[in-house]
Amino acid sequence: MSSQYGEFLPPQRLLMGAGPSNVHPRVLQAMTASLLGHLDPVFLQVMDDVRSMLREVFKTDNPATLPVSGTGTAAMEAACVNILEPGDVFIVATNGYFGERLAEIASRTGAHVVTVEHAVGEPVTAAAIKDELAKHASVKGVGVVHAETSTGVITPIAEIAKVVHDAGALLVVDAVTSLGGVQLEVDAWDIDVCYSGTQKCVGAPPGLAPITFGDRAIEVMTNRKTKVQSFYLDMTALRDYWQQRVYHHTAPISMIYSLREALRIVLEEGLENRWRRHANNAAALIAGIDAMGLRIVANPDFRLPSLTAVYSPEGMPEGNVRKYLLDNFNIEVSGGLATMPALAGKIWRIGLMGHNSTASNVLYFLSALETALAANEYEVAAGAGVSAAQRKLRELGS
Amino acid sequence: MSSQYGEFLPPQRLLMGAGPSNVHPRVLQAMTASLLGHLDPVFLQVMDDVRSMLREVFKTDNPATLPVSGTGTAAMEAACVNILEPGDVFIVATNGYFGERLAEIASRTGAHVVTVEHAVGEPVTAAAIKDELAKHASVKGVGVVHAETSTGVITPIAEIAKVVHDAGALLVVDAVTSLGGVQLEVDAWDIDVCYSGTQKCVGAPPGLAPITFGDRAIEVMTNRKTKVQSFYLDMTALRDYWQQRVYHHTAPISMIYSLREALRIVLEEGLENRWRRHANNAAALIAGIDAMGLRIVANPDFRLPSLTAVYSPEGMPEGNVRKYLLDNFNIEVSGGLATMPALAGKIWRIGLMGHNSTASNVLYFLSALETALAANEYEVAAGAGVSAAQRKLRELGS
Repeated sequence: MSSQYGEFLPPQRLLMGAGPSNVHPRVLQAMTASLLGHLDPVFLQVMDDVRSMLREVFKTDNPATLPVSGTGTAAMEAACVNILEPGDVFIVATNGYFGERLAEIASRTGAHVVTVEHAVGEPVTAAAIKDELAKHASVKGVGVVHAETSTGVITPIAEIAKVVHDAGALLVVDAVTSLGGVQLEVDAWDIDVCYSGTQKCVGAPPGLAPITFGDRAIEVMTNRKTKVQSFYLDMTALRDYWQQRVYHHTAPISMIYSLREALRIVLEEGLENRWRRHANNAAALIAGIDAMGLRIVANPDFRLPSLTAVYSPEGMPEGNVRKYLLDNFNIEVSGGLATMPALAGKIWRIGLMGHNSTASNVLYFLSALETALAANEYEVAAGAGVSAAQRKLRELGS
Repeated sequence: MSSQYGEFLPPQRLLMGAGPSNVHPRVLQAMTASLLGHLDPVFLQVMDDVRSMLREVFKTDNPATLPVSGTGTAAMEAACVNILEPGDVFIVATNGYFGERLAEIASRTGAHVVTVEHAVGEPVTAAAIKDELAKHASVKGVGVVHAETSTGVITPIAEIAKVVHDAGALLVVDAVTSLGGVQLEVDAWDIDVCYSGTQKCVGAPPGLAPITFGDRAIEVMTNRKTKVQSFYLDMTALRDYWQQRVYHHTAPISMIYSLREALRIVLEEGLENRWRRHANNAAALIAGIDAMGLRIVANPDFRLPSLTAVYSPEGMPEGNVRKYLLDNFNIEVSGGLATMPALAGKIWRIGLMGHNSTASNVLYFLSALETALAANEYEVAAGAGVSAAQRKLRELGS
């Protein structure tokens, strides 16, 4: 029966897009471990391990640190629905699609959402947020995307935190594409709510979304006048489940096994080593891209090590090159998001995340890109990108 | 570094509680396949396979059939938030905890939620729903739990559907513990919204939640005056992603691989064969339980084949036996939910779901239970339960 659904034998892709990224074989293997009940004493220890390692990776002591049972968008929604109530003012500083998404999700809580727009390729600034804060008598929170996956821009957080707290508001930070690959310091930078996904620099498959709530955010949650509109994402109940084993929902057991193994790998390498690896490989990629005469979207001072957005040559539809890379090299890169007309059809988004951020992937990708460009009649001196990347890697000693 | 987090080597449990259940090794193996991007053409085919197989398993032609990227509770929430708006009347017929949870989740939409309570151990009746419907000028929907996991009761749906539709309301059915193991006919029974989880009779790990919306429900969604309060669970966007590949969130790739393989196994066996297998093994379990002089929670005419709730002997804390089974036999059964005082501390919930619904598990469990009861000084004639189950299995020819 059902012979139309054959055995699943996928090609081996090198995932160098906006995520998911490939993961270490140990992480895939972890999912084959025997299932446990979600209240099994052995599984409760797994949950404790995961919470504890997540605190190390977020660089926080927050007890309310756990993975939401959904993907990054679920954690974005968890951040909004737990702190916002109808009528609250929430400011979102946007510099790309994921900021816009945060504003959209926040607006569905009934909060009054104000966006402070920044140019594509530029980071969010504390000054712009300060100006907007000054216009409101009371602001519940400010949302900022640390690592804007739609453009490859990183926004410095510490100064923004100060401005936000001076106004008595909470700082919500989207770290979907930075956690585990790019410096992120929840406590030192004084972030109130921070969330991420597992499938980017953390090095696990998609399906879980780490989140952490600090004391101020917990206080806001505790003093709510209304129930959190989402039962599934109600952080008080999730925290009671993760900390006190009060049944809330059936945790995705196998995904949590995979996250535990991915976090073990992160901590074996060490966070600082991991940040350096991501930074060095991105620098090599950028050296290669520059040598090929291609233009990068992000301001050179605010480039995200885990994702580089590059304009395709004038007149060349970016999709041609992406298709060539997928068909001929099994390399996936992402295009621009359809919701951003300035970038849709015009850029490639090249990810070097977690397990995939390696010098060999940089060199392989650049040679494949040279081939793809040549096939699309764009002239590059043979090996120009690769040799520039090699020089950069030698210079960085990696 | 981080030497406190060792390799994860869990015990091999036999999961005979309220779920998750063990899964076929092919399903665990499927998760180790190479990750694909969520917009990869090969992955898009996987999504089509999953949608198509889910329609077969739900027995529906609904195009809007897909797995939500969360566990069963997320699908319960998706059902509520997509059809309900503030002020709508929603009736939930409850006969256990999961009906109460449905009412709680529905109430967070701002709908006016009315519960129609039924006795523990009894099914929901069409007559009680009809009476309640008659009290309201307009009712948006009625929610019913097909398979109440807290008590092991099954509620016949077809007659309820007629009563609900006569009143112009939508019928929402929770099939978390029935889909794939117990007869469920979304189209033939005229169900408008039906959802489930993967970790019970479908035979995959927890982490996804199949859901289906029929034409009437789609029409209600289309005519909403307000946005769906959850972006993550917005069915219109989810449907556009699953059907038209409009980016919404990063699907949990590995979990979807596991679901594809689990559904393949369901269809290889055939739904009717699977329903019969669950029914026969439950009958054997019940014969054994009866022979041991233990009392079952559910009305004999409405017993759920996938889960049997049994009172522990008078005066014996149920937890003693559960701990004995776990420590000595690696068998997990569930206790009564803390939120149900009539059952908490007093019952075992014994699951025979999906891959785990086998005659050998029934016989192994009953012998383990006999041993556990003897260790707790409850007298059972040696082998009474096992031999009664054997006779029943022979009688049923399975």
